[in-house]
Amino acid sequence: MDEEITSEEDSLKGRPKEITHNEKLLSLKYESLDYDNSENQLFLEEERRMSYLGFRCLEISRWVVCGLIGFLTGLIACFIDIMVEQLTGLKYYVVKENIEKFTAGGGLSISLILWAVLNSAFVMVGAIIVAFFEPIAGGSGIPQIKCYLNGVKIPRVVRLKTLLVKVAGVICSVAGGLVVGKEGPMIHSGAVVAAGVSQGRSTSLKRDFKIFEYFRRDTEKRDFVSAGAAAGVSAAFGAPVGGVLFSLEEAASYWNQMLTWRIFFASMISTFTLNFFLSVYNKNPGELSNPGLINFGSFDRNVRSFVFVLTCECGGPPGGLLGALFNALNYWLTIFRIRYIHRPCLQVMEAMLVAAVTATVSFIMIYFSNACQPLDVVQGEDYPLQLYCDDGEYNSMATTFFNRPEKSVQNLFHNPPGSYHPLTLGVFTITYFFLACWTYGLAVSAGVFIPSLLIGAAWGRLIGIMLPVFPLQIWADPGKYALIGAAAQLGGSHQIRVIRPEHNKPLPGLYDIHIKLQSVPFVHSEAPPTSHWLTAREVMSSPVTSFNRVERVGTIVDLLSNTSTNHNGFPVYLQADEPPRTTLLFTLQVFVELARSKLTRRKLQLKDFRDAYPRFPPIQSIHVSQDERECMMDLTEFMNPTPYTVPQETSLPRVYKLFRALGLRHLVVVDDSNRVVGLVTRKDLARYHLGKHGLEELQLAQT
Amino acid sequence: MDEEITSEEDSLKGRPKEITHNEKLLSLKYESLDYDNSENQLFLEEERRMSYLGFRCLEISRWVVCGLIGFLTGLIACFIDIMVEQLTGLKYYVVKENIEKFTAGGGLSISLILWAVLNSAFVMVGAIIVAFFEPIAGGSGIPQIKCYLNGVKIPRVVRLKTLLVKVAGVICSVAGGLVVGKEGPMIHSGAVVAAGVSQGRSTSLKRDFKIFEYFRRDTEKRDFVSAGAAAGVSAAFGAPVGGVLFSLEEAASYWNQMLTWRIFFASMISTFTLNFFLSVYNKNPGELSNPGLINFGSFDRNVRSFVFVLTCECGGPPGGLLGALFNALNYWLTIFRIRYIHRPCLQVMEAMLVAAVTATVSFIMIYFSNACQPLDVVQGEDYPLQLYCDDGEYNSMATTFFNRPEKSVQNLFHNPPGSYHPLTLGVFTITYFFLACWTYGLAVSAGVFIPSLLIGAAWGRLIGIMLPVFPLQIWADPGKYALIGAAAQLGGSHQIRVIRPEHNKPLPGLYDIHIKLQSVPFVHSEAPPTSHWLTAREVMSSPVTSFNRVERVGTIVDLLSNTSTNHNGFPVYLQADEPPRTTLLFTLQVFVELARSKLTRRKLQLKDFRDAYPRFPPIQSIHVSQDERECMMDLTEFMNPTPYTVPQETSLPRVYKLFRALGLRHLVVVDDSNRVVGLVTRKDLARYHLGKHGLEELQLAQT
Repeated sequence: MDEEITSEEDSLKGRPKEITHNEKLLSLKYESLDYDNSENQLFLEEERRMSYLGFRCLEISRWVVCGLIGFLTGLIACFIDIMVEQLTGLKYYVVKENIEKFTAGGGLSISLILWAVLNSAFVMVGAIIVAFFEPIAGGSGIPQIKCYLNGVKIPRVVRLKTLLVKVAGVICSVAGGLVVGKEGPMIHSGAVVAAGVSQGRSTSLKRDFKIFEYFRRDTEKRDFVSAGAAAGVSAAFGAPVGGVLFSLEEAASYWNQMLTWRIFFASMISTFTLNFFLSVYNKNPGELSNPGLINFGSFDRNVRSFVFVLTCECGGPPGGLLGALFNALNYWLTIFRIRYIHRPCLQVMEAMLVAAVTATVSFIMIYFSNACQPLDVVQGEDYPLQLYCDDGEYNSMATTFFNRPEKSVQNLFHNPPGSYHPLTLGVFTITYFFLACWTYGLAVSAGVFIPSLLIGAAWGRLIGIMLPVFPLQIWADPGKYALIGAAAQLGGSHQIRVIRPEHNKPLPGLYDIHIKLQSVPFVHSEAPPTSHWLTAREVMSSPVTSFNRVERVGTIVDLLSNTSTNHNGFPVYLQADEPPRTTLLFTLQVFVELARSKLTRRKLQLKDFRDAYPRFPPIQSIHVSQDERECMMDLTEFMNPTPYTVPQETSLPRVYKLFRALGLRHLVVVDDSNRVVGLVTRKDLARYHLGKHGLEELQLAQT
Repeated sequence: MDEEITSEEDSLKGRPKEITHNEKLLSLKYESLDYDNSENQLFLEEERRMSYLGFRCLEISRWVVCGLIGFLTGLIACFIDIMVEQLTGLKYYVVKENIEKFTAGGGLSISLILWAVLNSAFVMVGAIIVAFFEPIAGGSGIPQIKCYLNGVKIPRVVRLKTLLVKVAGVICSVAGGLVVGKEGPMIHSGAVVAAGVSQGRSTSLKRDFKIFEYFRRDTEKRDFVSAGAAAGVSAAFGAPVGGVLFSLEEAASYWNQMLTWRIFFASMISTFTLNFFLSVYNKNPGELSNPGLINFGSFDRNVRSFVFVLTCECGGPPGGLLGALFNALNYWLTIFRIRYIHRPCLQVMEAMLVAAVTATVSFIMIYFSNACQPLDVVQGEDYPLQLYCDDGEYNSMATTFFNRPEKSVQNLFHNPPGSYHPLTLGVFTITYFFLACWTYGLAVSAGVFIPSLLIGAAWGRLIGIMLPVFPLQIWADPGKYALIGAAAQLGGSHQIRVIRPEHNKPLPGLYDIHIKLQSVPFVHSEAPPTSHWLTAREVMSSPVTSFNRVERVGTIVDLLSNTSTNHNGFPVYLQADEPPRTTLLFTLQVFVELARSKLTRRKLQLKDFRDAYPRFPPIQSIHVSQDERECMMDLTEFMNPTPYTVPQETSLPRVYKLFRALGLRHLVVVDDSNRVVGLVTRKDLARYHLGKHGLEELQLAQT
């Protein structure tokens, strides 16, 4: 295995530059977050100074912050919802008027062009801000948040600018009639809000409120971000418990009960805020009838549990098949995009093309369908379109396309038998499937959850309608089949594994595929099976560069600047005491500045690190003169004298468990005499994965 | 701090024997479970032999086992529910007939005696089986399961006998009219089922099905037990997601996504099984209208989230006050019971007394109340009792007492305004409060969840009725106030902390109190605040006894037998390699047996350990002759060559986090040269807690 480490470096040099994204590579450009407090002297001094009352105040602040996170996330969700509704309504009235004008006299192609242009315009705005201003705000945002909670530092993922682009982008793409949902972006928004609020300042706006300074480190911030993501889920789906479960699943390695309760609190406040403001907007304050952005109406909860069991048994195969097809198509499309559509203007054009095609396809389907349904005043279709139907009837296909997808899902679940023609459903399923697949991965801010649900609900309901043809019917209500279909489709494409425990080789989910294609060093919750053969000695990076306790500044600068030898390894001092790289960089800068201003040595405090967090200066920005290089720097205060260590014979699963459970950034490997022989970092663990031929090793790439 | 360790031993000798249970003590009689796989040579060899297919098969077995656990737990819940209903119905008809006979003519005291005798008889049976056959089956079982999941070995807690006594006991106590719920016992039952099914054998029945042998160790068993507990919650409350959250909260230290899904699967199957069989029992199979043993009817989920927020703001104070009062009274009662009522026959008599008093109090309240309500045929009161009411009316107080408490809670939530007289509610609250407080801790199998809910719902509804007197009403429906009250009371007595984040010193919950009174070394999810002053050197046990790699049998036997020096410390070999005690004991026995039968040395396999798990022989049962004592034993295969270690300067929170996150049983403390200087075990961490005067240290006791 030792040889492979060297051979990787060879392959790095030989590898052509252009194929930078590949699921067989592991990128080294991603740094790690440190979810384990570095217990250096400064940290311990502060903790020991703090009284019991101080700890209680901190605890109360945490609750306050979580309440704020929930409130703001709810507000943002409310804003998105109202804006989408307004814009969609506007578009509907313009198009409807136009269609009605031309229905009788002919010339509907003008309506089509109007529709396509309107949609493309919305999408263009959404794509431009994403492609040109903040590419990280594209897509659903859930993969990015998963990575963040996993401990991977994705640049700019929780910045204010990202939030603004995300929110504006999702409004544009939903209003632009794309086959997307707004749930993923909501979750991302919640996470950004949390990262901002908990730090008590905005580095983008250059405002520091001088509060919550204690929370300015990765460990604390991660806890709040998981609360924010939960609040986002809670607002999007009206399911506070679901939010807690989402966070538990993604973040759970080390967990404690108080955190669970805080997350639940944030989720509750978020749902509540959303409901309250929506009720005010709908002019019946206090009514609180919208539990979330999605309300699928109430199924008996036994129907739900029955459906769950049935989905595992019956819905699995079609859901799994369609899900796998969706993922495979999207995978190839993404590869294609990475290779050929990487310039922002191309991305904008592709998004506009998809918008125009979506409008055209929808229009054609509406035009050729004759799925007329009586207009039921009680039922209250929001956007009825008469088209060629008789008076008092409406075109149900048109409604399906004009409605927000959430509403369409709800209709598929709850409309009475006979509301849909089988052909309508069949054509709709196929069209929507391919459109959704094409849309996900565009440079727009958009989620894929609701489209999956809608596809599943459509084919589920179709099967429900077709079953009586064969004498196989269980329920009279096809809505229940729609529910099964939705669950199965979701399970199939997101690979919620419970659907398919019997599969011998679990296929990766859609988000996992996109994470892999970004070559992110994602550490899963368990080591791959059959990895007991590997030991720490074989997976670690070595040799390790090290410093003395009092080191010459020149040596430090040289080592930190030398990225080729030092890309992942962190300087290790003496035996097993290691100051992490960020801390060291910062110390260096302060030292240089202090030396320059000829001040007597000021004692560096934890506060200085907090003020700089999370944007420590890169080594390139630090200029050291020849004289300064000869100065000596005392690193004692900044190193962690008690890092976690493992013996070099430790098996990979054991190393993995320790690393993951404690949220480490680097783990020191020592020999019998406690001498440091290597370091295990994120990439050393992430590169082992289960491939077609058993345990495989990913190659490392600098990009 | 070192001095304190020695002073503890002094205090142990000087401490009077009788006060064995005290929340200021930490018992040393509880052993730990090992939730970290000991990666000794045998284990690693087996893991490395296993193919990828083998791992997949294991994974499928886990799903199968979880399905089975869910199914059996659902069945048991169904059995309990049906038995309780049958017995309660029987009792009701006997008493009703009797009361009706005497209502007109007088002589109701005979009815009272009949009622009291019937109740006492039921309770006597329930108390006898608990007190004489299996005391661990007493109470709700939740504290015991919490301890088990925390890693404390509570003897006999997951045995078949415990399950039988628990199930029979809870049926008796509920049918006996005690103020108890059956939810706690359901959770305990689920856990026992899980522990049994997952091992593929019953040691009690001496049947080994030779399946699931891989799961015969603490780590795997713990995962299944958490699934079983979740299935129990799910059956009891009809809330599969709630079950998952319960398990996450109690067990969560190291967690992975697949486990979450398996637990969810078990929970779903459990609810589904319960519903299915109950629907068959109620003669409308497939109807599935009972989501769980408790069905509180449907509140709009916004009402729920609104209530949640309101509870935090308003319900807290009364709920917290009453909860704290409940806990304080129960605390003193428990102390009293531990000191004076420890003989089984006394316990049975107390339980019978409580049953008789409960019956009498209920009877008196029914007799003196004139809360007559019109008998609504549609509403369908299950147990109407006319008593002195007019024809077509029934006594609502009698109904409240005769109903299963679950039904009463539901009525308080959903009955229309005007169903209850304020006086009825007030008297009921007070009476029920004291009865519930007296009942919890009796030697019967019974939970306290539903009584808490019922008390809360009663005072909540009372407040709801009284509010219009002051012009303070928000809702017309007093049922919503009942919901707030129930939530607040539950939060108050179980100390669900979200209710009171603002309190500076969180009071312990009811279960925590009972865990503390048992002096269980419970390791909470975080180290107490202000414990950064302590380091591993100060908390560890030392000196450490150690073995050589090849050791004389006599030395091993002597060290293991010497409980006084060795009560917690596990033999440590060479530098940081330690074979855990159970393994060593077992090895010793096998060695002795092998030596005796004059066999040539058979290689000891992991299978031998599994066959013996979890009841390894005590050292006293191993008799070693003088010749055998001189034999040498090679421990290489049984020791873990890569134990987790920490430097002696590591702070307590850091040690705590490592210990808790990995579910360790002992953590080796080493000096700079990697020499073992001490061991940190569960009791070393559990004895630090936050007292009135900051960080306090519990004393250690052998009992």
